[in-house]
Amino acid sequence: MNDYAEIGKRPIRHDGWEKVTGKAQFGADVTLPGTLYGEVLRSTYAHARIKSIDTSRAMAMDGVFAVVTAADFPRLPFGGQGTIARDNLAHEKVLYHGHGVAAVAASTQAIARAAADLIEVDYEPLPPVMNLDDALKGDVLLHEEFEEDGKFTNVYEREINEIGDVEAGFREADVVIERSFTTPTIHQGYIEPSACIASYDEGAQSTIWTTTQGHFNIRDNLADQMDMDVDSLKVIATEIGGGFGGKTAVYLEAMALMLSKLSGRPVKMRMTREDVFRCAGPGAASKSTIKIGAKRDGTVTAMQAFLAYESGAFPGAPLGGGMRCVFSAYEVPNVRIEGLSAVVNKPKVRAYRGPGAPQATFASESVMNELAAELGMDPIELRLKNALRSGGTNIFGQFRELGLVECLEKAKASPHYQAPLGENQGRAVAMGFWRNGGGTSSASVVMNKNGSASVLTGSADLSGTRISLAMIAAETLGISVNDVRAEIPDTNSVAHTDGAGGSRTINASGQAVNRAAHEVIQQFKERAASGWNVTPEQVEWRDGKAINTTREEELTIKEICRDAPDTGGPIAGSASLRAESGLGPCFSVHLCDVEVDPDTGKTTVLRYTAIQDAGCAIHPSYVEGQFQGGAVQGIGWALNEEFMYDENGALENPGFLDYRVPVASDLPMIDTIIVEVPNSMHPFGVRGVGEAPIIPPLAAVACAVGNAIGVRMRDLPLSPPRVLEAVESRKLPNAA
Amino acid sequence: MNDYAEIGKRPIRHDGWEKVTGKAQFGADVTLPGTLYGEVLRSTYAHARIKSIDTSRAMAMDGVFAVVTAADFPRLPFGGQGTIARDNLAHEKVLYHGHGVAAVAASTQAIARAAADLIEVDYEPLPPVMNLDDALKGDVLLHEEFEEDGKFTNVYEREINEIGDVEAGFREADVVIERSFTTPTIHQGYIEPSACIASYDEGAQSTIWTTTQGHFNIRDNLADQMDMDVDSLKVIATEIGGGFGGKTAVYLEAMALMLSKLSGRPVKMRMTREDVFRCAGPGAASKSTIKIGAKRDGTVTAMQAFLAYESGAFPGAPLGGGMRCVFSAYEVPNVRIEGLSAVVNKPKVRAYRGPGAPQATFASESVMNELAAELGMDPIELRLKNALRSGGTNIFGQFRELGLVECLEKAKASPHYQAPLGENQGRAVAMGFWRNGGGTSSASVVMNKNGSASVLTGSADLSGTRISLAMIAAETLGISVNDVRAEIPDTNSVAHTDGAGGSRTINASGQAVNRAAHEVIQQFKERAASGWNVTPEQVEWRDGKAINTTREEELTIKEICRDAPDTGGPIAGSASLRAESGLGPCFSVHLCDVEVDPDTGKTTVLRYTAIQDAGCAIHPSYVEGQFQGGAVQGIGWALNEEFMYDENGALENPGFLDYRVPVASDLPMIDTIIVEVPNSMHPFGVRGVGEAPIIPPLAAVACAVGNAIGVRMRDLPLSPPRVLEAVESRKLPNAA
Repeated sequence: MNDYAEIGKRPIRHDGWEKVTGKAQFGADVTLPGTLYGEVLRSTYAHARIKSIDTSRAMAMDGVFAVVTAADFPRLPFGGQGTIARDNLAHEKVLYHGHGVAAVAASTQAIARAAADLIEVDYEPLPPVMNLDDALKGDVLLHEEFEEDGKFTNVYEREINEIGDVEAGFREADVVIERSFTTPTIHQGYIEPSACIASYDEGAQSTIWTTTQGHFNIRDNLADQMDMDVDSLKVIATEIGGGFGGKTAVYLEAMALMLSKLSGRPVKMRMTREDVFRCAGPGAASKSTIKIGAKRDGTVTAMQAFLAYESGAFPGAPLGGGMRCVFSAYEVPNVRIEGLSAVVNKPKVRAYRGPGAPQATFASESVMNELAAELGMDPIELRLKNALRSGGTNIFGQFRELGLVECLEKAKASPHYQAPLGENQGRAVAMGFWRNGGGTSSASVVMNKNGSASVLTGSADLSGTRISLAMIAAETLGISVNDVRAEIPDTNSVAHTDGAGGSRTINASGQAVNRAAHEVIQQFKERAASGWNVTPEQVEWRDGKAINTTREEELTIKEICRDAPDTGGPIAGSASLRAESGLGPCFSVHLCDVEVDPDTGKTTVLRYTAIQDAGCAIHPSYVEGQFQGGAVQGIGWALNEEFMYDENGALENPGFLDYRVPVASDLPMIDTIIVEVPNSMHPFGVRGVGEAPIIPPLAAVACAVGNAIGVRMRDLPLSPPRVLEAVESRKLPNAA
Repeated sequence: MNDYAEIGKRPIRHDGWEKVTGKAQFGADVTLPGTLYGEVLRSTYAHARIKSIDTSRAMAMDGVFAVVTAADFPRLPFGGQGTIARDNLAHEKVLYHGHGVAAVAASTQAIARAAADLIEVDYEPLPPVMNLDDALKGDVLLHEEFEEDGKFTNVYEREINEIGDVEAGFREADVVIERSFTTPTIHQGYIEPSACIASYDEGAQSTIWTTTQGHFNIRDNLADQMDMDVDSLKVIATEIGGGFGGKTAVYLEAMALMLSKLSGRPVKMRMTREDVFRCAGPGAASKSTIKIGAKRDGTVTAMQAFLAYESGAFPGAPLGGGMRCVFSAYEVPNVRIEGLSAVVNKPKVRAYRGPGAPQATFASESVMNELAAELGMDPIELRLKNALRSGGTNIFGQFRELGLVECLEKAKASPHYQAPLGENQGRAVAMGFWRNGGGTSSASVVMNKNGSASVLTGSADLSGTRISLAMIAAETLGISVNDVRAEIPDTNSVAHTDGAGGSRTINASGQAVNRAAHEVIQQFKERAASGWNVTPEQVEWRDGKAINTTREEELTIKEICRDAPDTGGPIAGSASLRAESGLGPCFSVHLCDVEVDPDTGKTTVLRYTAIQDAGCAIHPSYVEGQFQGGAVQGIGWALNEEFMYDENGALENPGFLDYRVPVASDLPMIDTIIVEVPNSMHPFGVRGVGEAPIIPPLAAVACAVGNAIGVRMRDLPLSPPRVLEAVESRKLPNAA
């Protein structure tokens, strides 16, 4: 596929040893001398006014060192960090069941828990607002911050994007289909609960170890919440046991740091699994209405979407992601996308892999499949007819090289798409689009005297990015990846790097590593030139060697590095950049076969193929792993996962037994096909790969189930009772 | 003195808070999950052949995880790391009392100790060689590695440096004085014993935390001893509780790492205070003979030295330091310096502050004082007459700007030098020369978005170097030192930096920080230029601001850093260099008043003034602290400190009760006078300051005692019995 020496190979990740031997330190694994343990008192109401908090009994307990409430923090205005602060610890009102009210630091976890439970809160209960319909009615308001038409509302934002004339487009159409869809609140389901340890130092830098997708962002956020300078904080990213967008926020860190400040001791805090489900930013529930019109030949003439997202108790719904992705795979002249987000009495939502896109794409791709059926067209042919191609334009502008058509062609030609189906079985296809993140990244490349290199970036490693960044450095320098080690130093030791999210790491941090390595190569050339008494321009860099172009002479990296102390000092390079977002968008196409048990409504995924344009797969195993992991999370979202609240707004299934994510035995092997249409904005052609694979499964699974049972499914999850109800309501023949 | 904004001020050191609150982590403070504890079995003979080692009873003990002897390590040839390996764990022979023979890792320190004591070693005792005279006789040989005149010897090296014709010089002289001197084995006396914790990882980087003056050197040394690649090791320098040259070597690290490899667990090791004295490289004992001739007017016509040093059980005596310093304060046409070092059955010596110079200068400056008395000249005048001046030449070449004359003039004019003396009191002056270290240093400067900076260097902070390096960065950038934090990251995170020793840190690492900060300034100018649409050459950098020279416009660092993500990414710079050694030599002149109790021989230091050319005192408090600390260590060396061995070569005083270093109540406040003759090879004129202050005290104290009692003292230490003996042998009148 390419003639790279390292890129495209599948080396063993350097952090693997520590992971499999249990030596890797995750968020809860760091303990300091004198550590105290923190526990949070959480609201037992989904919506209530706090009349008073009495912490005196907790403070009086033996072994208790400090108690904090929101009153101990600087009071920030609503919005930005002020909102995070209100989400961490309630101000005037608790806004969801599990909302933090106070926190205690004590010598043991048990004492802290007991003391937290001694804190007395006097609540005035209010009716909870638990869904979009109630939120939009506005009979009960969560905040008095958002206004519409001169009165307070629960609607935080409304947006409209439009090109062409959709009404004219629909008039041109021979077939118009309009359908509504819902998706529930779901969770990223990462294995490692949030955990941190904070050590406040009045006169020095305070240090926080935390499991996070972005330790620089945590530093910025904490500095605001604590009213500290960023340089008075050092944040160390521990290993992270999954994040998927959920670990981009301050949850416990500010409480731990304030408790440490008040107690003068390090304070460690960790969430229970229940806490994670109840309080740590889930993925947004949604309602969507999609209307698509097409001519008989399959030419889509107009697309219209109305997208509504719950944002939880505070603003933060992924409306932008949904609007940007819902129709972006298609080149259609008339498009209108309207959306809103509204607050409800649930935890503030957080990013979840491809934020907003799976919900919206579930709706749009389901309608495209229904349209194909209505037109009697093959669904891949319908998509190929309208697909966005390299150089094409959609509502968000013109694109460069794109791999959508290649992905669709691979899908069409795949054995999977041609395989026969049996009784009660159905198949469907769906696409996903993600623009991929850019943002700020910094990297250093430090050469050792034996010619090996240390690569430092600020990007937390969620998914094997260290080995991939090491491969980029190795390829650039012309050395073996075994001679490169990638590390994630603390916030003092490398320049600001945005969090690992939005599929930006290998794109943006990969570019920073590549540039830093080029800085190093420039120094290699200068050192060689000075030894040869020629100019650096007379030195060429080839295959990891400096070549003297004026006479036959060359120097290896090992030689240059060995001699470096005598030729000007050791060699290191650094680079920072802000990569533009969206310049290397990618597409995924998924094929799903299911079988539905008509007696129980249980759906079994029989076969699943994820096809995606990676641009360039640096480490194909981890690219495939992303395709597979995204597909699996999407399948779980489609089939099983949902937050179930009781009438008081308390979550009834805050654990993996009742909130059922798919496990290996539930699923077939997810087949993968990597397409590589290089992204010209990246030195190695990389596009991000992490988000796109979670976008198609909702529609692919739901349409496959629909095809299996002959009833189109538009409300997730497709739990057995819901599928059984559909089967029994229709008893239609298999429509595959 | 200068018009710097930050340099020359006395800010509070940023690491002070952690130190005074006990949060700073020293060598023994790091513990990892599953840590084992290591103990060493040490030789009970000073010289013996090892016939066999039986570790079976230790291995069989409950709680023991691993035992190592030298046989577990790759066998390196004698010399270099092979010598360190033999010093860590004996090979065929034990060569000093306390020499490591085997080490055990167990679940507790007590089990490890008990198990180590179960190891059975069958020794064939050999007679110990405990002093230079016996070593030179060569009746008993320690090694069969060194040959002289075709036969094995204990002499490791002989060197001669010569200019002019000393015999002719002595013929020209009116007065010639030749005297011999001895100094004992002494110890650096650092407060923190050696300690480390090693975690070996077969498939990843192994990590070692250790208290060291140079973690990059430790990495290099360990890689050789363990036969590993340097990049498979990460060394983290903990805080260090004193080193003074003694913590430049691998002591426990290789044993801990091998025990960790064999046990699969982290292994922590620490020396007891006894271990430190018995085994951790002390300062060398010496014998010197000095001959100086002068005309009646004080013009010195010839100087001759013979210097002999014990190197302990292995090569490593500071002969070079002695030879380089003994006469370097004088510009004399005829000089001959001869020296040797020889092995004895004591621990291998290590650097101790100004290695080799105090011993040699004790002799040369004592003779200069005797010469002044003989000539009837003021001893400062005699020195001024012969002093090396800016542009002058001595045996080691020509010098640039020097501050010796300035220091002598300050001494002469000081109230101390003019004050009257009482009965049984004496005063003396002595000088010291140190060429100051260069070597390899690397630094990074990382800007935060609020305009503050993080400074990373590889130099362990022995003495407040972090705050001084932060001040250099602040001065260069034009920001407050409170906005700069200096850190010492691990060996992955900055390029190679030689150990902190030889007074090189603020010289070499200071230059690296300055260059890295200039890299940052260049980027500031480029960012400003790009915003203003001018060339970087049209931007000037003044007072921490970018000034547009084409129109009235400026940007502060805060503004540039705030906007940096949008103008090309965050800003950071790095630099590495190899600073030439000796380009910024410095001189110290000390004045000492003592009173001797004629009934007990006890000497009390009444008044002490340390005058030294710092070139530029970055942080005067720490410069003064260096002057004072060096003076105090020299006073201890002169008056009290010595290793006392029994007839079997066992150290009899391995503890601070019996090896008596001066404490605060023993001494007057040490007065200091900082002279600043800038070093033109350093951007701020810095010369190193750490070594020079320990060089004059031996002669200054001994000559002051001699002047008090009327007997010249030529053998250290001047313990009460030895002084009393001198008093009683002569009863000469006060010769002050």
